[in-house]
Amino acid sequence: MQPQLDATHAIQLASQVTPIEWFEYPVQAFPHDTDYGGVVWHGAYLTWLEEARVEYLRSLGVRFSDLVAMGCDLPVVELTTRYHRPLRMGESAILRTRMQQLNGVRLVWDYQLVSPDGQTLYLTSQVTLVTVDREKGKIMRQLPSAFRDALNRPISGSKEP
Amino acid sequence: MQPQLDATHAIQLASQVTPIEWFEYPVQAFPHDTDYGGVVWHGAYLTWLEEARVEYLRSLGVRFSDLVAMGCDLPVVELTTRYHRPLRMGESAILRTRMQQLNGVRLVWDYQLVSPDGQTLYLTSQVTLVTVDREKGKIMRQLPSAFRDALNRPISGSKEP
Amino acid sequence: MQPQLDATHAIQLASQVTPIEWFEYPVQAFPHDTDYGGVVWHGAYLTWLEEARVEYLRSLGVRFSDLVAMGCDLPVVELTTRYHRPLRMGESAILRTRMQQLNGVRLVWDYQLVSPDGQTLYLTSQVTLVTVDREKGKIMRQLPSAFRDALNRPISGSKEP
Amino acid sequence: MQPQLDATHAIQLASQVTPIEWFEYPVQAFPHDTDYGGVVWHGAYLTWLEEARVEYLRSLGVRFSDLVAMGCDLPVVELTTRYHRPLRMGESAILRTRMQQLNGVRLVWDYQLVSPDGQTLYLTSQVTLVTVDREKGKIMRQLPSAFRDALNRPISGSKEP
Repeated sequence: MQPQLDATHAIQLASQVTPIEWFEYPVQAFPHDTDYGGVVWHGAYLTWLEEARVEYLRSLGVRFSDLVAMGCDLPVVELTTRYHRPLRMGESAILRTRMQQLNGVRLVWDYQLVSPDGQTLYLTSQVTLVTVDREKGKIMRQLPSAFRDALNRPISGSKEP
Repeated sequence: MQPQLDATHAIQLASQVTPIEWFEYPVQAFPHDTDYGGVVWHGAYLTWLEEARVEYLRSLGVRFSDLVAMGCDLPVVELTTRYHRPLRMGESAILRTRMQQLNGVRLVWDYQLVSPDGQTLYLTSQVTLVTVDREKGKIMRQLPSAFRDALNRPISGSKEP
Repeated sequence: MQPQLDATHAIQLASQVTPIEWFEYPVQAFPHDTDYGGVVWHGAYLTWLEEARVEYLRSLGVRFSDLVAMGCDLPVVELTTRYHRPLRMGESAILRTRMQQLNGVRLVWDYQLVSPDGQTLYLTSQVTLVTVDREKGKIMRQLPSAFRDALNRPISGSKEP
Repeated sequence: MQPQLDATHAIQLASQVTPIEWFEYPVQAFPHDTDYGGVVWHGAYLTWLEEARVEYLRSLGVRFSDLVAMGCDLPVVELTTRYHRPLRMGESAILRTRMQQLNGVRLVWDYQLVSPDGQTLYLTSQVTLVTVDREKGKIMRQLPSAFRDALNRPISGSKEP
């Protein structure tokens, strides 16, 4: 019921990495995710993007809630999403994510939401986070060292939710 | 507690229109909009972007639910959001929106979320919708004429929610 | 498309008060509130129940965010909702709420969601909050006095959102 | 930071079934689930209650989206929830659910949200659904036979999300 944009419209950076590098997070469209069209409401995908980031970090040994407890927040400062095809109620999909090379305190994540067989592309997205000192309310000059070390470690594979 | 990006990072098109052209939609950060940081969760802003579009269309005499009942859907196909400063629980703000010149069946909306006095910029966004034939599941070749006529009519001012 | 329960199933306390005592909060079913059925998803009503509480308190001169900043939280400890008829996308309604006589530190709210003409009943609900000392994480023995005084003041009428 | 109601306040029916009969659905509190208190917002639990129902039905061989495609809807008509302790960001828990003996076309589900070790009770809930003929918009006189047969089949165990 929704448009089927050409996959060439996909956010480009996403297509420049090899599949092996992606962290995979399985999702499913529940009734609460849908809107009147019987498909996932466009804003509901953002919950999955966030969940995949949290689980990716956990696969590196970093618990998001620990970061926050330590006084380091990771707010989203920019987000771009392209919706290629709608995911329908009851359908499952794989959300692939990878983090780009660290650029100071900016963490840039690329995403692809694809069908379980990898043949259908539903969504591409890019989300940028910055590390913020919660007490000062300011962007940190550099990442906490333990966090930076974890991010530079190679990922060990995907993690079931 | 979140970063304060330079306002020059605001999505540029937003700054090229004069304030008088904006449709204004007042919002307030309720507890359900917030996250652990006491500020609006980044995805929650998307509900306001949608509400402002629906109310803007209504100010032109177009009821969104009538469009859908007539078989015309308006899915989001692209969305870019920049988060400049977080809106805190209990704070009110004004969501300004305007629609760019029609470009075929693409409706492109610019947004600015500002403080009631217009001095603080919280968020800028650009959202693209396309008109889709619900039955065929395909992008329409042209807008339904009554809808196109309404969109080309000058707006008569803002509408309280 | 959803069942139409007999209005006699409405939560009883709600019907024992006279209409004049209700605080009225207008709502509208936006696309993001709906599910695959084209009606408001059952959980989405809870955002409106909360908004009506916040606005009711504000009409008494109590800002919810001030309470929280002062170290007093008001978590929901019990919630019962009966869904009589579904509200469809694009429809408007009036959410009526009133607070029962204070019972220690428990605040009990009754709700009715009705059509603008008051003839159709969509939902009845009862929500219980308690006042909690945020620092200690414990239920307060008594309400902060300024808060108790405000709650015992007669309400001055409804407030538009 | 939230009250710790006595577990004896738990909805009683929940405690009258033996643990072995529960379907278990693991959950985790992500940032988008939280509110300003750093705990799961009271309405966000309803998404988990729904997900557990959908997965329970799937464990019986019934896909919720197939039911809807067949013209049978399952709206919530009543919901009662007691919040015993808040689940904090980053915490995991187990949502236990079981369906009571079928009572005509009413499906009554009991819930307990507990810590992974089963020692902490966060929430108890009871949710009632009815089967509705989507085309007629009326409650069905009886369950579709294939659906009734599936519901009467013993469950085969828990299912990971």
